[in-house]
Amino acid sequence: MTRALALATSPGVPLGPNPRVGCVLLSPMGTTLAEGFHRGAGSPHAEVDALARAGDRARGATAVVTLEPCNHTGRTGPCAEALVAAGVARVVYAQADTNPVAEGGAATLRRAGVEVVGGLLADEARAVNREWTFAVEHGRPFVTWKFATTLDGRSAAADGTSRWVSSRPARIDTHRLRARCDTILVGTETVLVDDPQLTVRDEADENLPRERQLLRAVMGLRDVPADRRVRDDAADFVHLRTRDPHEALGALFARDRQHVFLEGGPTLAAAFLRAGLVDEVVAYVAPMLLGTGRSAVGDLGVTTIADAWHLAVTDVTVLGEGEETNVRLTMTPQDRKEDND
Amino acid sequence: MTRALALATSPGVPLGPNPRVGCVLLSPMGTTLAEGFHRGAGSPHAEVDALARAGDRARGATAVVTLEPCNHTGRTGPCAEALVAAGVARVVYAQADTNPVAEGGAATLRRAGVEVVGGLLADEARAVNREWTFAVEHGRPFVTWKFATTLDGRSAAADGTSRWVSSRPARIDTHRLRARCDTILVGTETVLVDDPQLTVRDEADENLPRERQLLRAVMGLRDVPADRRVRDDAADFVHLRTRDPHEALGALFARDRQHVFLEGGPTLAAAFLRAGLVDEVVAYVAPMLLGTGRSAVGDLGVTTIADAWHLAVTDVTVLGEGEETNVRLTMTPQDRKEDND
Repeated sequence: MTRALALATSPGVPLGPNPRVGCVLLSPMGTTLAEGFHRGAGSPHAEVDALARAGDRARGATAVVTLEPCNHTGRTGPCAEALVAAGVARVVYAQADTNPVAEGGAATLRRAGVEVVGGLLADEARAVNREWTFAVEHGRPFVTWKFATTLDGRSAAADGTSRWVSSRPARIDTHRLRARCDTILVGTETVLVDDPQLTVRDEADENLPRERQLLRAVMGLRDVPADRRVRDDAADFVHLRTRDPHEALGALFARDRQHVFLEGGPTLAAAFLRAGLVDEVVAYVAPMLLGTGRSAVGDLGVTTIADAWHLAVTDVTVLGEGEETNVRLTMTPQDRKEDND
Repeated sequence: MTRALALATSPGVPLGPNPRVGCVLLSPMGTTLAEGFHRGAGSPHAEVDALARAGDRARGATAVVTLEPCNHTGRTGPCAEALVAAGVARVVYAQADTNPVAEGGAATLRRAGVEVVGGLLADEARAVNREWTFAVEHGRPFVTWKFATTLDGRSAAADGTSRWVSSRPARIDTHRLRARCDTILVGTETVLVDDPQLTVRDEADENLPRERQLLRAVMGLRDVPADRRVRDDAADFVHLRTRDPHEALGALFARDRQHVFLEGGPTLAAAFLRAGLVDEVVAYVAPMLLGTGRSAVGDLGVTTIADAWHLAVTDVTVLGEGEETNVRLTMTPQDRKEDND
């Protein structure tokens, strides 16, 4: 299974709407017959990939696969049936597939007389597809909220100017984080005021191809004029005409979106926080003081310290040095507390 | 000289108004005759300490000392004369003594026929007595401004409550930092609103003896009532009846103070920053969000981003873990910029 997990995360496998899956076919003697992995939406699933390489030798074999074989016909046929047809005698999988359209693979296999064992290294397998797993289980995309702030909590000076609260190393890092997601989400306010392009750029390769770009989603009731950069040809664009974070995420989930990078202003971020719809927070703290100016975070409805929003820090990384330093904190919002003494 | 520097920072040498100094006496053959170091105000200077141990053997010797021998009579006599009287032939020192009341030791020695070499490992010697050196050169104490803030720049919630924006590891760390200074400075506002005791406490030894406490200085025009904790018997207290940071630091320098730990509120801190009187900034950033509430930093007169106050980060330390994490940034204020693109 360790080998199958390594196959799942083979170099070049894109983060797309499909989970990353690896499969190893073993002979009854325990020798490796074939290996396979999924190369992204539209390409064969890991099991089918391995079966094609094994040919007739798959008869009587054990398939070790990181995700419960699927039971549905999408752009490819159901893997459970392919395994049965190939004569596989035993299937060992890690993570159960709870995706409503694909679940039931283990039951199909058992009905066909295949021995099935599930749950081996399940946590490791879930970690490989953290956002996909989250989206399947919660029926909405995983949300990473990113913001940049001065040490005193400002995102812009009193006159609205903000270049640069992030240092160059922090801006490069932000593009790396964007590239891990499938959607960038901002509000109409940000588009109308700042007119960002919201593409993924790369230090080495400034203009990345369109297929490596994310969906640019703008939410809010106001129109997004055609001349805004977010509507250019560099990447896809969608306008979500709602002010409700639940509704916006539902619309993105319906488009197979699993990982949203929330980069809107303080008001939009506060709306997501208050709705309990932020799963991860990435803050870039710049060693600057403004004293006054636009707050990096909007009103959260907190009036007393016991109601503060607490975050658990999972990582602290220092980017750059001297006055170009930015400190990146990665955090998980905690359940609200009644008492935090 | 390396040995002399090690002697200067011998365990147990207190950080007091006097510089830490070490001295090694070498025979004409280069063998060590005696070592000495200064053990704090009122005790013999390093040279005198070493001479006492060497006795008659000091005649014709070389004295290697981390600070230019003093030329003045304080609680002890001038070291320059003591070296001449002992018959020392050669003096090698690291840091020149620019303290107006003590300088001139090298000239006195040369006039008496002693060979003098200065400047060996001078930077290292200056670092040993960073605050003393700073105070002597600038005619005022070195100022470390410490503040605690949430990720969104708040020091308290909208109703004024603030327990705890610092995690327990950060509070322990703050006491360690206080213990490196000789004065804690706050404004009358802090004393009237929060009534802090402003003592140094220790995790292992909660009630430290009075001699290990700092001077508690309160600045501002308002009276400090006798029942305030800052006026209790745990440590010394002084009320600086001024609103001018220059005047307050001048008064503290006149009391032999070299390192002020500025822990006042946002208004006092902003006054020191705007006066250019903050030499080091220590910020504790807590993974909390309040959205609204009291700002950790007051008005700095900044209206546009180009006028932002930039700090060079010299250290980032993570204290605690999870939601108890605090990130400590140690920084040096940079010269103000006209253009920071």
